[in-house]
Amino acid sequence: MTAGRNRQVLLASRPQGEPTPENFRLVEAEVPEPGPGQMVLRTIYLSLDPYMRGRMNAGPSYAPPVEVGAVMEGGTVCEVVASNLPQYRQGDLVLAGTGWQEYAISDGEGVRKIDPAHGPISYALGVLGMPGLTAYTGLLNIGLPKPGETLVVAAASGAVGSVVGQVAKIKGCRVIGIAGGERKCRHVEEELGFDACLDHRQPDLHGRLSDACPEGIDIYFENVGGAVFEAVMPLLNDFARVPVCGLIAYYNASGLPEGPNRVPQVMQAILVKRLTLRGFIVWDFAEQYPDFVSDMGGWLREGRVRYREDITEGLENAPRELIGLLKGENFGKKIIRVGSDPTQ
Amino acid sequence: MTAGRNRQVLLASRPQGEPTPENFRLVEAEVPEPGPGQMVLRTIYLSLDPYMRGRMNAGPSYAPPVEVGAVMEGGTVCEVVASNLPQYRQGDLVLAGTGWQEYAISDGEGVRKIDPAHGPISYALGVLGMPGLTAYTGLLNIGLPKPGETLVVAAASGAVGSVVGQVAKIKGCRVIGIAGGERKCRHVEEELGFDACLDHRQPDLHGRLSDACPEGIDIYFENVGGAVFEAVMPLLNDFARVPVCGLIAYYNASGLPEGPNRVPQVMQAILVKRLTLRGFIVWDFAEQYPDFVSDMGGWLREGRVRYREDITEGLENAPRELIGLLKGENFGKKIIRVGSDPTQ
Repeated sequence: MTAGRNRQVLLASRPQGEPTPENFRLVEAEVPEPGPGQMVLRTIYLSLDPYMRGRMNAGPSYAPPVEVGAVMEGGTVCEVVASNLPQYRQGDLVLAGTGWQEYAISDGEGVRKIDPAHGPISYALGVLGMPGLTAYTGLLNIGLPKPGETLVVAAASGAVGSVVGQVAKIKGCRVIGIAGGERKCRHVEEELGFDACLDHRQPDLHGRLSDACPEGIDIYFENVGGAVFEAVMPLLNDFARVPVCGLIAYYNASGLPEGPNRVPQVMQAILVKRLTLRGFIVWDFAEQYPDFVSDMGGWLREGRVRYREDITEGLENAPRELIGLLKGENFGKKIIRVGSDPTQ
Repeated sequence: MTAGRNRQVLLASRPQGEPTPENFRLVEAEVPEPGPGQMVLRTIYLSLDPYMRGRMNAGPSYAPPVEVGAVMEGGTVCEVVASNLPQYRQGDLVLAGTGWQEYAISDGEGVRKIDPAHGPISYALGVLGMPGLTAYTGLLNIGLPKPGETLVVAAASGAVGSVVGQVAKIKGCRVIGIAGGERKCRHVEEELGFDACLDHRQPDLHGRLSDACPEGIDIYFENVGGAVFEAVMPLLNDFARVPVCGLIAYYNASGLPEGPNRVPQVMQAILVKRLTLRGFIVWDFAEQYPDFVSDMGGWLREGRVRYREDITEGLENAPRELIGLLKGENFGKKIIRVGSDPTQ
């Protein structure tokens, strides 16, 4: 019943700097058959996320790298097509991490059923999934937003940034986004309700940010690094909090930027302004998932959080789309439609 | 009764890099007379501390700079020699911030009586005062020591570092100090009871630190920056905490070090290892002073915390001694004896 072709995208080689199509290889394998205690999952949606660039490197990180020749990792929404597990039946919809392929074997570990009542099933990869939980937990546990404070977040139209800003608005903050291009900025201001959104492609980001934050910055949700970090740092207020969630500006870098070495400047700012910089990943706050689903589900139903997806058809396009994502070419949460909706 | 000469040390000019004797000027003024609501304080001890280098600069910091031509700031232990304040009497001993001079007027603001029962009155400038409270609050509130964890602190024989390490030992940590020279290191190991103390003047600090911390570093109490920070960073464990209390290595720097710019490296470490870096100054935790005095007083009486002072006679030597302090030439808490003990 599951016989047929299983298209997969493998990591063909490790990138130097920006990934290229040659770093990936599209192959076909057999569709696997489930053994005892296993099930077969058919991918409907694959999530593309900036962290994937880190997994393509050999160096140590918070997760082991993808091996060369292995299937690229990634979060997926799947349909159970055959199951020898008592708790899963054919037709069940699940959130899984089966990666860049059409079919995969699973023993159920790390798999969670999706309740379509909460919204479109693809939302489990975004606003109701890992990016949403990242935004929610990082903002509330480390950012500690208080009414009247000013928050800045980059990649403001993206999966994490859009939720950070909207939840901060709900908590009473003044929220300034940063995004690439006029179209994204307009969306962030008009659809997402940020107080302002600045285009980082225009000159003098620091000056415009300074104008947009007349009372300084109390929370900088760091998901990009680079030029945005440099524009923000001088504007941070005493006791500002900086949840460090991602550094997409550095992911493709193959070396360090030219000097001078600005580490002393950053450390002095931490000391003099009594800043808190704290790194986190979503699993550090996994126990807050039930609170998150309850809050976020409510905000979505009430229209207080809005969410945009950028869906591309076809697994074969995943490499090109990840390369584009790392350049900010997506507009909303990037998702690949790998297979058709469930038939029933 | 207070008539006579009042010797003072003024800031003569702002230093470029390391301060020189020419940045200070010793002058004589009249001993002031107290007006209504005022008292006159006679300095017995003056504290010298690394933060004073920052006050000599014009730039913004957590406190305004000393103006050129003004008396250098500093914490003092004083005797009340004349008082028009009902709560202070001649002969009272007080902790004050009257700076580098023999006599000063005070309206009582920021002044606190010293109870000689707690120990030598000079301890109010060190283990029972600002440096001790800095060590205690930074370690307990930000370092969050847990039994079995490894802590590293530099300037380990100094006023802050020596207390950080000894309190961390009381909390069950393995404690590695860093200090300049064999004599200080031996003192830190043998008298203060650290598990080890490394001489930063010897080569390959990173390698020796790595050997001394086989299970990595969970808390790095940052009071120096520079080469120690660079040696520590690669050894930090996931979820390590870095209270940032001082950066003496940078205080004399007149520019940034050569490149490459290592900020991306530091930010990546914060993200990947989920570090917390948090700056603080002692007044951020002023409300914990009663707990501190109670704990520290007890530890001193029980001999669980030991404390060393490095006392130099004569206000005229304060400039030379501050210059030496910034080079690590002191051995223990640096104090200037400005005047004689109380007569009564």
